[in-house]
Amino acid sequence: MKFSTLFTLISTSLLLTACSTQEVANNKTEKLPKNIIYMIGDGMSMAHLTAYRHYANSSEQHIGLGNKVVPQTIFDEYFVGVASTLPDDDTLVTDSASSATALASGEKTYNGAIGLDNDKSNLTSILEHAKFKGMLTGTISTSQVTHATPASFLAHNESRHNQNEIADAIFDQHINYKVKADLMLGGGTDYFIREDRNLVKEFKQIGFNYFSELSQLSDMDQLPVLGLFAPKGLPYAIDSQDNPNRLLAMTKPALSLLNKNNPNGFFLMIEGSQIDWCSHSNDIACAMQEMEDFAQTLSAVIEFAKKDGNTLVVLTADHGTGGLSVGANKQYKWLPNVIHKVKASAGELVKSIFASKDIAKTWLDSTGFELTSEQLTSVKELKAQDKSKELYAKIMKFINDQSFTGWTTTGHVGDDVAVIAYGPQSNKFVGAQDNTDLAKKLLSYIKTK
Amino acid sequence: MKFSTLFTLISTSLLLTACSTQEVANNKTEKLPKNIIYMIGDGMSMAHLTAYRHYANSSEQHIGLGNKVVPQTIFDEYFVGVASTLPDDDTLVTDSASSATALASGEKTYNGAIGLDNDKSNLTSILEHAKFKGMLTGTISTSQVTHATPASFLAHNESRHNQNEIADAIFDQHINYKVKADLMLGGGTDYFIREDRNLVKEFKQIGFNYFSELSQLSDMDQLPVLGLFAPKGLPYAIDSQDNPNRLLAMTKPALSLLNKNNPNGFFLMIEGSQIDWCSHSNDIACAMQEMEDFAQTLSAVIEFAKKDGNTLVVLTADHGTGGLSVGANKQYKWLPNVIHKVKASAGELVKSIFASKDIAKTWLDSTGFELTSEQLTSVKELKAQDKSKELYAKIMKFINDQSFTGWTTTGHVGDDVAVIAYGPQSNKFVGAQDNTDLAKKLLSYIKTK
Ligand SMILES: [Zn+2]
Ligand SMILES: [Zn+2]
Repeated sequence: MKFSTLFTLISTSLLLTACSTQEVANNKTEKLPKNIIYMIGDGMSMAHLTAYRHYANSSEQHIGLGNKVVPQTIFDEYFVGVASTLPDDDTLVTDSASSATALASGEKTYNGAIGLDNDKSNLTSILEHAKFKGMLTGTISTSQVTHATPASFLAHNESRHNQNEIADAIFDQHINYKVKADLMLGGGTDYFIREDRNLVKEFKQIGFNYFSELSQLSDMDQLPVLGLFAPKGLPYAIDSQDNPNRLLAMTKPALSLLNKNNPNGFFLMIEGSQIDWCSHSNDIACAMQEMEDFAQTLSAVIEFAKKDGNTLVVLTADHGTGGLSVGANKQYKWLPNVIHKVKASAGELVKSIFASKDIAKTWLDSTGFELTSEQLTSVKELKAQDKSKELYAKIMKFINDQSFTGWTTTGHVGDDVAVIAYGPQSNKFVGAQDNTDLAKKLLSYIKTK
Repeated sequence: MKFSTLFTLISTSLLLTACSTQEVANNKTEKLPKNIIYMIGDGMSMAHLTAYRHYANSSEQHIGLGNKVVPQTIFDEYFVGVASTLPDDDTLVTDSASSATALASGEKTYNGAIGLDNDKSNLTSILEHAKFKGMLTGTISTSQVTHATPASFLAHNESRHNQNEIADAIFDQHINYKVKADLMLGGGTDYFIREDRNLVKEFKQIGFNYFSELSQLSDMDQLPVLGLFAPKGLPYAIDSQDNPNRLLAMTKPALSLLNKNNPNGFFLMIEGSQIDWCSHSNDIACAMQEMEDFAQTLSAVIEFAKKDGNTLVVLTADHGTGGLSVGANKQYKWLPNVIHKVKASAGELVKSIFASKDIAKTWLDSTGFELTSEQLTSVKELKAQDKSKELYAKIMKFINDQSFTGWTTTGHVGDDVAVIAYGPQSNKFVGAQDNTDLAKKLLSYIKTK
């Protein structure tokens, strides 16, 4: 055998071996994330993403900025798949507790359950596993900390409605003799500061830094941290003119803090809680403003992850709310410019109508379009009869009809939701999957730590 | 330098070079498809996919087969992304002609356009490019061949409504002195066989084999082929008890024929046309049966592509129709078992009510559930008043309410649609994109031939 032939043979064989190893590296042993950020858009259906894209690329004056071009949103840029959301019963449509438990633990359960299986046994959440492994942990939400989604990561209770018990559990249920979360930001003083128990005081006693104003967050320089910025949920973005992006305001300082001198990495759950609440009201202007805050928060998270290089970001929804569609009522159009002009949530609009002496003017000032005389009459009648609930639904219908926004329910729907991912292992989230698969994949990265 | 050192150096450098080439091969120069199969579910929203998953995994007796497990459909298995569908005007909601032209040519246009740009200039379709390159070409649809989607691949006309002109163009507009398609299967004798022109005769004269019965398709052994199986569209799957999967019935023999002794490959467009039509009627039972045919057709196509190894399959929708949601009316449930029991399309149900002497019994026999006495009275009144259109809408509402199916419109919606892909280059379709991007990618593979 000549030298050159030998060389060729050996090098070819080595080369093949090496390359197949390389492929294995690409496909199977890609590096594991140090940090995991799990973002949940409560109630964010696929239609919310399309609607938000058009909302973000339009203004009060214009429907869209040149329609041949569709500028992508931050959600679009990292879109990789969809997830099914059905609960463990025969309804096929989940509530926020069941799906949050599925997203937190990888196990399906009954509607209403907080971190419990169908047989009421505890389901360990990703956050709890992360704490076991010595990672820093946190939750951020625009809902109260005790609401279904953060609660399913932080506690175990047979019903989402037991919010006092859930607040107690957040303090009392420990991992390695310690409180589970190093950072909790959201609302909920009603459940933490009660006649029978003051959990804020107790958290302070064990060393937590407590914040009660969003404006104080720049002072947040040391963990552990509890921040409760409202009695229940924070005010709607659309009603927070001075600081509509309050999820972003909580998230940015939290990321710096969790990342500071932290060799073990962190797990952080961030919920855009009120996309769901606005959508239960079929309040499209409210929902779009929540989407804006959620989008800006995702941008900040991706920016952090890009700089860090070791952070996996996974974003999904627990379910869709409202059965939203872009276009409705036989008309082939949707008018985001109408939505941009609406200046308050449904509840605030009702209040301003009740307080107004010139309803036509109040309406025009708040929404940018005039009521027909028939619509005005019906509003005046409902006001005279003190029917605020009917008025609420009626004025939402005016705005939805005006913008050609469709809704099928004031409840949840069972349609698949989006999966968006960035960072190490993000390619594992491509395609159609169940919501429990998302949790199982995340758990597998934490368990190998 | 010792031999071993030299060897190591050379082999390492070769190895690195070779591996980066390998990576380039994986990422950039993956083999190009020989054949392209482009499947379009007309009106198939994201919710249709979730609904079909539950429909396929349930029966008349059961809502689902064990709800912790969600068996995937063929759509789920190859789901890779979503596509935006807006037309080139300021409506944000497309019709089937505009979106079919976008999917066929990679260019956005006005609603109603068949293969024309906003300035009425011709937009060359993928099928036309394929014919230029010497590939075999075909379209299969359950609509008439002259309907918006196949027409946008086969012809150019300022309006989708000029179906006689479109039929003429399919014969008269040539590529390289030849008719553009080697295979056309669907409906449409009304437009091909007219008083002023008999295009079937003309197609036969230039050598086309003509078929008028689906049962004859087993005799189809040589191209070119024209098959027209109905005056306009084929009957609905749900009304075709002997052969509900007629898209599958057309597709299987077509694939064998296009692949026989064909070194240049083929381009085939397959449309599940009537998902849209059923959804315009908000007829969920009808829509699910069309989804079943479309799913089985995709299975057959993937099976072909797997055996072949050189076929790229891309499936999408032109837009969603109906604003469908899985769940509606505040209830957290959806009942596919109700839908399985419905035995006919809305139109056939109306006919049977008009022909019936015992409406309560006729209804129960056709739908599996009893009308309330109030519902029965309203049906009888509408029948007595000969209001078939109102009756049509009324009975759809009964079935939608019974199954908790939501719809926001009898028209189209602007929500993003699914992208499903298999085969060489299928990884290029991962993520969120515009519908024109799908066409541009497919065109790029054909243009490099
Ligand atoms: Zn909800
Ligand atoms: Zn249509």
